[in-house]
Amino acid sequence: MIKLDIGLIGLGTVGGGVYSLLKRKKSILRERSGVSLNLVKVCDRDSGRRRALKVSTRQFTRNTKDIFQDVSIDVVIELIGGIHPAKEYIIEALRRGKNVITANKALLAECGTELFRTAAECNRKIFFEASVGGAVPVIKTLRESLIGNRVLSISGIVNGTSNYILTKMSQEGLDFGEALSLAKKMGYAEANPALDIEGIDAAHKLTILAMLAFGGEVRFRDVYRQGINNITASDIAFAREFGYVIKPLAIAKRTDEGIEARVHPTLLPEYHILAKVDGSFNGFLFRSDEAGEQLLYGRGAGSLPTASAVVSDLIDCANKKDSLVLLREKLRVKPIGTLSSRYYLRFSVIDKPGVLSAISGILGRHKVSISDVIQIERREGNFVPLIMITHEAMEDNVMKALGLIDRLRIVGRSPQVLRIGD
Amino acid sequence: MIKLDIGLIGLGTVGGGVYSLLKRKKSILRERSGVSLNLVKVCDRDSGRRRALKVSTRQFTRNTKDIFQDVSIDVVIELIGGIHPAKEYIIEALRRGKNVITANKALLAECGTELFRTAAECNRKIFFEASVGGAVPVIKTLRESLIGNRVLSISGIVNGTSNYILTKMSQEGLDFGEALSLAKKMGYAEANPALDIEGIDAAHKLTILAMLAFGGEVRFRDVYRQGINNITASDIAFAREFGYVIKPLAIAKRTDEGIEARVHPTLLPEYHILAKVDGSFNGFLFRSDEAGEQLLYGRGAGSLPTASAVVSDLIDCANKKDSLVLLREKLRVKPIGTLSSRYYLRFSVIDKPGVLSAISGILGRHKVSISDVIQIERREGNFVPLIMITHEAMEDNVMKALGLIDRLRIVGRSPQVLRIGD
Repeated sequence: MIKLDIGLIGLGTVGGGVYSLLKRKKSILRERSGVSLNLVKVCDRDSGRRRALKVSTRQFTRNTKDIFQDVSIDVVIELIGGIHPAKEYIIEALRRGKNVITANKALLAECGTELFRTAAECNRKIFFEASVGGAVPVIKTLRESLIGNRVLSISGIVNGTSNYILTKMSQEGLDFGEALSLAKKMGYAEANPALDIEGIDAAHKLTILAMLAFGGEVRFRDVYRQGINNITASDIAFAREFGYVIKPLAIAKRTDEGIEARVHPTLLPEYHILAKVDGSFNGFLFRSDEAGEQLLYGRGAGSLPTASAVVSDLIDCANKKDSLVLLREKLRVKPIGTLSSRYYLRFSVIDKPGVLSAISGILGRHKVSISDVIQIERREGNFVPLIMITHEAMEDNVMKALGLIDRLRIVGRSPQVLRIGD
Repeated sequence: MIKLDIGLIGLGTVGGGVYSLLKRKKSILRERSGVSLNLVKVCDRDSGRRRALKVSTRQFTRNTKDIFQDVSIDVVIELIGGIHPAKEYIIEALRRGKNVITANKALLAECGTELFRTAAECNRKIFFEASVGGAVPVIKTLRESLIGNRVLSISGIVNGTSNYILTKMSQEGLDFGEALSLAKKMGYAEANPALDIEGIDAAHKLTILAMLAFGGEVRFRDVYRQGINNITASDIAFAREFGYVIKPLAIAKRTDEGIEARVHPTLLPEYHILAKVDGSFNGFLFRSDEAGEQLLYGRGAGSLPTASAVVSDLIDCANKKDSLVLLREKLRVKPIGTLSSRYYLRFSVIDKPGVLSAISGILGRHKVSISDVIQIERREGNFVPLIMITHEAMEDNVMKALGLIDRLRIVGRSPQVLRIGD
C-alpha cells in the first residue's frame, strides 16, 4: 500500500469539493488504486470555511508555513487561484521537495514555463488536470493518449459561462444582457463576469492546451481575444438563416508560419459536432495525425467535477507517473491579421439604391468576395441591417475594407465582424 | 532513458499500423516520453505482410516461440484477434514474465477474468486501451480520470459499422441492404458483417466497459443483444416524425437489482448528444456521481487510430503504471424482461374500424399505455402501418401483449419493437 501525505491550500468551491470527495471516497479510493490518500493539513485564511466543512481544528491551519514546513507532506494541492501568492506557494512547495497539484489556469498560462522549469530543477512534478475542462480529461488525453500523435489543431468550447449565455440567446431569443443576468442567477457567472465574457479565461486555457499540444512555450499575451459581449440576438437569428450557430470558440492550430491561437465567437455550421455542445458544457475537439478527430465533452467547472480531476492527479502522483512538461521552443503565434477565414459581416445602412454596390465594391477592391447576402426591410431608425457572408479572405484586408466602409455616410453604427469556422 | 523491448504478434490492419507508427515516430516518442521503444521481433504467419511493410528478415519471424523465448523482450503486443490461439499466447507471455498489450475485445470479454487473474499471479500487467474505442481513451478515462467516481451508467455508440449503416439510412433514405452494401464498399463492414450488425462486437466492448465501470465480473453471455438488421427505412422515417433518431446503443447501468447490460437499436431524442454521433464515429457517454456527464467521441476503429492507442499503452507500460484490474464480485445482470422503458411499436394492420381499440385494449390489459399514435393511409398489400409510442412499461408485459396481438387476424407481419432512450 502506497501512502500519500497531502497538504491542501484553499477551501473555496474546488478545495471544499476536494475535501469532501477525499472524505467520502477514502476507502473506495484505497481499494481501487492501492493508494492511501492521507490529508494531513488543510489551510485557508477563513476559519468559517473550516466550520462549514467540519474540518477538525487539528487538521486545519490558517498559516501555509504549517504545510510547507511539515516534512511528512508529499504533495501540496494549490486551489486558491490567481497569480499571487499562488505562484510563490507553488515554488516554495517545489523547493521544499513536494510535488504540486493545481487547478490554477491563470497562473499556468502566465507563468507556466517558469513553474515547469522550477519543478524540473527540484526534480519534482506539477499536475494540473483540473486547470482545464474540470472533470473532462483533456490534459491526460493530450499528454498520454495522444503521445504517438502530432496534434494538428484544437477547437474548443472551453468556457461554460460564455457557452451558457450564447445557448440561452440562441434557444430562447434572449439578448446578451438578459442571458448574462440569467447566468448570474444560475451561479454560472461571477458578479464581475469579465474573465468569462471577454475570453480571458478561455485564452488562459487555450495557452495551456497549445503548449501541451505543440510542445513549445506559448505566451498568453500573444493569444488573440474577442469577447462575446457584442453579439446581438439579431446576429444569432441571421446566422441561423445561413445555417450557422454562434459558439464561443478557442482555437489553436499548427501552420507553416507558426501557430494560430485565438479566442472569439465563431459561426459554426449547425451540423458541426461542437454546435451541439450546449448550455454550460465544455467540448474539446482535437485533430491529430494518427488518431484523427476526437471530442471530449463534459462539465468544465463546478466543485465536484473539478475535485474529481484533482483526485485523479493525486493517484497519478502517488504512482510516480512521469509528468514532465516538455517545452522545446518558444512558439511563434501568427498575428490575427494574417488569418485566412470566412467572415460574417453585419452593416447598418441607409435603405437606398447603390448601398450594396458601394460596400461590395470596397470589399472587392480588398480581395474580399461575397458568397451570400441578406438585406432586411426591418428598420432600426433610419437604418436597415445588411448581412454578408464572405468567401475566404485575409483578416487584414477585411479590416482595412471595413475601416473605409465605416466612413461612408450610408453606414450607421460600426459593422459587426464574426469569423466562420468549419 | 527507459528502454522497452517489444515483441509484436500479428501484422494485420492494427499490427501493421503499430509497426508503421513505431517506425515513423521513434525519435519523437523518445523525446516526449523519455522511453526508447525497441521493436525486437515481429511475428506473423504470412511472410507477404513482412514484405509489404518492409520488415527486415532479421526482425521477422513466423514462429511465436522466437518471441516468448527471447528473454530480452519486456512486453508482447497481441494483435491477431479471436479467442484461440490469442488466449494461449497471452498466458504464455505472462507466465514467461512479460507484460501484455492487446486490442482483443472478444477475448477480454469472454475470458477477461481468467486473463486478469493469470496476470496478477504472474505479477504482470495487461494493457488494453485499443480494445474499445480505437483512439478514444475510454479505458484510461474509466480507470484513471474517473477513479474518484462511482460510474452510474454508460451509453455508447461503440460499433462504427452499425452507426454508419443507420446514419446512411437516416440521412439518405437507404434501406438496410443498400446501406450495408455501401458500408462494405467503404471498407467499414467485413464480407461477413454478423459480428457488427448483430451487436456481438458491441456486446464484447460493453462487457469490458461494464467490468471496469462497476468493478465486477460481467459475463458476456448475460449481455442482451438485438441487431440492427430488422430496422427499416420506414422505422427511421416514423421515428423522425416523433422527434427521434435510431442509434445502435450499448447501455450499462447500475440499478438496485443488479446491472443492466444491453445492446440494441434505440430511439434517441434528436437533441440528445449521442444523436449527433454520426457516420462511422464512436461516442461514449459516461454518467458518474462526481464528474457528471461526459462524452468521448472519435474514430473507434482503423489502423492508425487503434495503433495510436497501442502506443499509449506501451508508454504506460514502460512507466510501470499500475494496471491491475480489480473485479471484486460477479455482477448480476438483470434479465431484459425486467427492463422498464418506453417503446416504439410498429404494427402492420388491416385498415378497418376497431383495429386500434383491439390493439390498445390488449396493451392496456398488460399495463402498457400509449402516448402517441400514427396511422398511415399508405397500403402495403392489404395492410397499413400503425405506429405507437408507449409510456414507460415493463418489457415482459410488452412482449406478452405483442404475443397476443400477433395472433389477431387483423395483424399482418410480426410487429417491430424498439426501445426508446433518454
